[in-house]
Amino acid sequence: MDYSYEIKDFDAGGRIGQMKLGKKILDTPNLFPVVSPFQNVISPRRLFEEFGAQCLFTNAYIIYKNRERNPEILEKKLHAHLDFPGIIATDSGGFQDYMYAGDIKLSPEEIEPFQEQLGSDCPVILDIPVQTTDSYEIAKEKVEITLQRARDNITRRKRTDTAWFGPIHGSIYPDLLKLSALEMSKLDYGIYAIGGVVKTFIDYRFDLDVDILLEVRKWLRPDRPLHMFGLGLPAFFSLAVACGADTFDSAAYILYAKADRYFTFTGTKNIQNMVELPCHCPICSKYTAQELQLLGKQERIEKLAEHNLYHSFSELRTIRQAIREGTLWDLVEQRVHAHPKLLKGLKRLQMNNSAAYFDQMLNLNKIKGQKYLGTYSFYRAPIARFRQKVKQFSLPETKSILVCVPELDLPAKNSRTLQAWIEDIRSCPDWNQTQFGIMSNLMGFIPLELAEMHPAGQHEGSGDMLENPIQRQILLDDFHQLINNNIEKIKSIKILIPKSFVNEYSAEEAFSAKTHIIYYLQDIIRERFPSLQVIQYNSIENLTSDKTYE
Amino acid sequence: MDYSYEIKDFDAGGRIGQMKLGKKILDTPNLFPVVSPFQNVISPRRLFEEFGAQCLFTNAYIIYKNRERNPEILEKKLHAHLDFPGIIATDSGGFQDYMYAGDIKLSPEEIEPFQEQLGSDCPVILDIPVQTTDSYEIAKEKVEITLQRARDNITRRKRTDTAWFGPIHGSIYPDLLKLSALEMSKLDYGIYAIGGVVKTFIDYRFDLDVDILLEVRKWLRPDRPLHMFGLGLPAFFSLAVACGADTFDSAAYILYAKADRYFTFTGTKNIQNMVELPCHCPICSKYTAQELQLLGKQERIEKLAEHNLYHSFSELRTIRQAIREGTLWDLVEQRVHAHPKLLKGLKRLQMNNSAAYFDQMLNLNKIKGQKYLGTYSFYRAPIARFRQKVKQFSLPETKSILVCVPELDLPAKNSRTLQAWIEDIRSCPDWNQTQFGIMSNLMGFIPLELAEMHPAGQHEGSGDMLENPIQRQILLDDFHQLINNNIEKIKSIKILIPKSFVNEYSAEEAFSAKTHIIYYLQDIIRERFPSLQVIQYNSIENLTSDKTYE
Repeated sequence: MDYSYEIKDFDAGGRIGQMKLGKKILDTPNLFPVVSPFQNVISPRRLFEEFGAQCLFTNAYIIYKNRERNPEILEKKLHAHLDFPGIIATDSGGFQDYMYAGDIKLSPEEIEPFQEQLGSDCPVILDIPVQTTDSYEIAKEKVEITLQRARDNITRRKRTDTAWFGPIHGSIYPDLLKLSALEMSKLDYGIYAIGGVVKTFIDYRFDLDVDILLEVRKWLRPDRPLHMFGLGLPAFFSLAVACGADTFDSAAYILYAKADRYFTFTGTKNIQNMVELPCHCPICSKYTAQELQLLGKQERIEKLAEHNLYHSFSELRTIRQAIREGTLWDLVEQRVHAHPKLLKGLKRLQMNNSAAYFDQMLNLNKIKGQKYLGTYSFYRAPIARFRQKVKQFSLPETKSILVCVPELDLPAKNSRTLQAWIEDIRSCPDWNQTQFGIMSNLMGFIPLELAEMHPAGQHEGSGDMLENPIQRQILLDDFHQLINNNIEKIKSIKILIPKSFVNEYSAEEAFSAKTHIIYYLQDIIRERFPSLQVIQYNSIENLTSDKTYE
Repeated sequence: MDYSYEIKDFDAGGRIGQMKLGKKILDTPNLFPVVSPFQNVISPRRLFEEFGAQCLFTNAYIIYKNRERNPEILEKKLHAHLDFPGIIATDSGGFQDYMYAGDIKLSPEEIEPFQEQLGSDCPVILDIPVQTTDSYEIAKEKVEITLQRARDNITRRKRTDTAWFGPIHGSIYPDLLKLSALEMSKLDYGIYAIGGVVKTFIDYRFDLDVDILLEVRKWLRPDRPLHMFGLGLPAFFSLAVACGADTFDSAAYILYAKADRYFTFTGTKNIQNMVELPCHCPICSKYTAQELQLLGKQERIEKLAEHNLYHSFSELRTIRQAIREGTLWDLVEQRVHAHPKLLKGLKRLQMNNSAAYFDQMLNLNKIKGQKYLGTYSFYRAPIARFRQKVKQFSLPETKSILVCVPELDLPAKNSRTLQAWIEDIRSCPDWNQTQFGIMSNLMGFIPLELAEMHPAGQHEGSGDMLENPIQRQILLDDFHQLINNNIEKIKSIKILIPKSFVNEYSAEEAFSAKTHIIYYLQDIIRERFPSLQVIQYNSIENLTSDKTYE
């Protein structure tokens, strides 16, 4: 088999991969634009040459039905017929069956070999998609039939130069998704593909999609690409990739164009309502909104479809570049602010115990600074892992005094004021018994020794403890555990809550105590560790001159 | 004077305006690209024709100093010299003085008439920019000198076809900004311009910029454009426009290009570190990252500058289109997630009592649905105004029973489950005495009578009351006031906290009570209105069948 799939880089739950099929190459994440087997507004040749499409999807079932023209195509083969030198995937009709809920009266034994004969690079088996409205029993039966067909397909294959799509189903039933992913992983498929989700994209049920993706990723072999059938909405690409999707296919670019719809990153708009084009693709740089409105219907469809494609491929490059830079979460957290339903999708990650999955996927070679861009940033794997690590921190035997100072406007010990505090405390007689820690609203307790470790010293922004009570509670529970682990060693805890500090612009700034985690430490220590001595100071002078410290 | 400025549309604090200067037109918000008076990588003619620049900025001081070439330019005039048919603005040297803190030894009497002689459309008076590090006394002196020069300038003007820039200063001192804005408003200037802020952009002090903009807008005449000198960072454009800025000028597109910097919406990147270009402008559609890297230095600067310009102008079109659609806050809330410092800028709006300003600017013709995209969405003027209105709601005399049900996944009464509740309660004998209200995490109490009023019936998404205690408190205080205003009429309050509901996808969904404001009502009523009868029900059946209800 001329197939290989190499994972070249990863960030969050997203990967950059390269699938090779003979001499044909597919860089993932990527999009298979869907084309008609017979007539297209944008030709496959133009997709390849002008838009850089490495792959496309067409429909074998439509060719199969067209008894008049299919002998010619079987003769020429699909690549010559479509005039497309890249990877051609073909659908089997299972999707038609799913969308139109009709019985298309087709057997796998007909349509699967037919796709091989057409010269398809990536044929799809004739699966039975599970609908979100299917009962558990019906869903289970569909999953089992699809699995059996997937097993049968392998024995029937004639060609060795194909990468078959192995559909995975289960819809709203996690145990069926698990069964489907585990069983399919035992079989040799080139691309695994989540099916039955098109309706969820139409309905903007991104929270459900996130659940499905993470459940499948948990059980699916990681060495193959994971496709999502029918996903063509660029606003969701980055979140889907972050949750483990590698490829998509969609006719959205042309279907939307036919309805005068124009993709933007703040939603899909109707071209007829637009006064200016918020884009700078070659189409939007050449035409004004008025000019597009005045074009003939057919030409307008073509221009809108081109814009929609430029937009989609630009987003895929943005995502791949973000994975390489280690900033995929930054991108996702920005993109989801296009719609409350996307936000709900991201929020799902906080709720469905995905922390372990993302921790496992954490790329320790990516030491890009972490930005706090909203609630989810707090739970990002590099940040969560740091907190996990530190709450198990064991104080050196010699340390009996814990000094806690607040992280200021710059990360860890980057603040000039904080550096001065360190110097002041270092010159105290008790320095050798002192464990110095910087309390951060994002990282929790940062031992001075780890203050330059990524991401303690490389992060920007943080939550407000008045506005984020859940984060506050997590930080306090972590702090509790740190104290608990070291309770034999610690004799006293000194907390500094300054009135002001010198900010990064060299200006004196009031310290807003209640927005900071340090404000909440004293109460929790008194409540949970009543035997510990805890003293709060409002200036470094008071702290260092305290008798108990000499 | 051939000058006019017409405000054609507005949203948030942003406006769409059109300045006319004779036959020359400037649509705002807009950017004046800064060009050299002598040599440019991208010629002014190309800026006009290829990039659609309606205006540009050049430096009269540099021309003035060049004694060898300036007679020729004075002869040809600036438009012919630069070959630019649009609006040409000229700087006076005040900015050079500010940036390089040198004494440029120039008098207003020399450079101001010189700009008129050059044929500048928009000359700038020789102001004395205030620095953020200036003491109050120095800042005040600079403001007063600039004001006096602004008054002198008017008496000296020879031409009537110019729109002079009137600089406003004050930096970190609100009362100086107020003084400057009020005094300048008395003088006839074509464009008012905040100066001394370039350093704040370089330092990403967007919170300070927001403060300055709002302070100036509060006191400045609204019938003229407000410019920000030196703002060229597209990521900040939308927030600046939402706070009242109309125009910007910057050389950032070319200065960044010279440093190999490439604008993106997730930050400025070094082209040498990029593998793929996350953009689809004509440059990025033509070249790969590798190809740009391999170009000669001069050609690479040109291509990067072109990309940076396409990116900047595309953002301005995006902003103008958003104002027309009434979605400027949507855009801003998405854009600020590019950087924690931008988020801090937006957060500033929650903190500095800007609610009255934005309420005053509220465009009641914009009835676009409101999206909840994060904490700030809660404070948007259309939403805040609805809450203000409703907390003063006076119950009809006949109403003595208050029934509160939770808003579900769809806004106000759009949910099928909620419609069924209304029908059930409507058929109760006590319906005529019942005031029915829908409790929303975003809108607070929505009386059934107002449920279709914008934005009650047109919003999407909302906060989580466990995660947003500040919003929770505001909603509870508003509810308190509503009850207080109607305490004479209300005899009992019935609260429905259902166990589940049918969601928009026709699926049964558990109701997550603690995330919803309705969960917190009973306690606050008992605490603050101990004499009121309040009963909580866990199903509509229990509520409608309650004896007290018959």
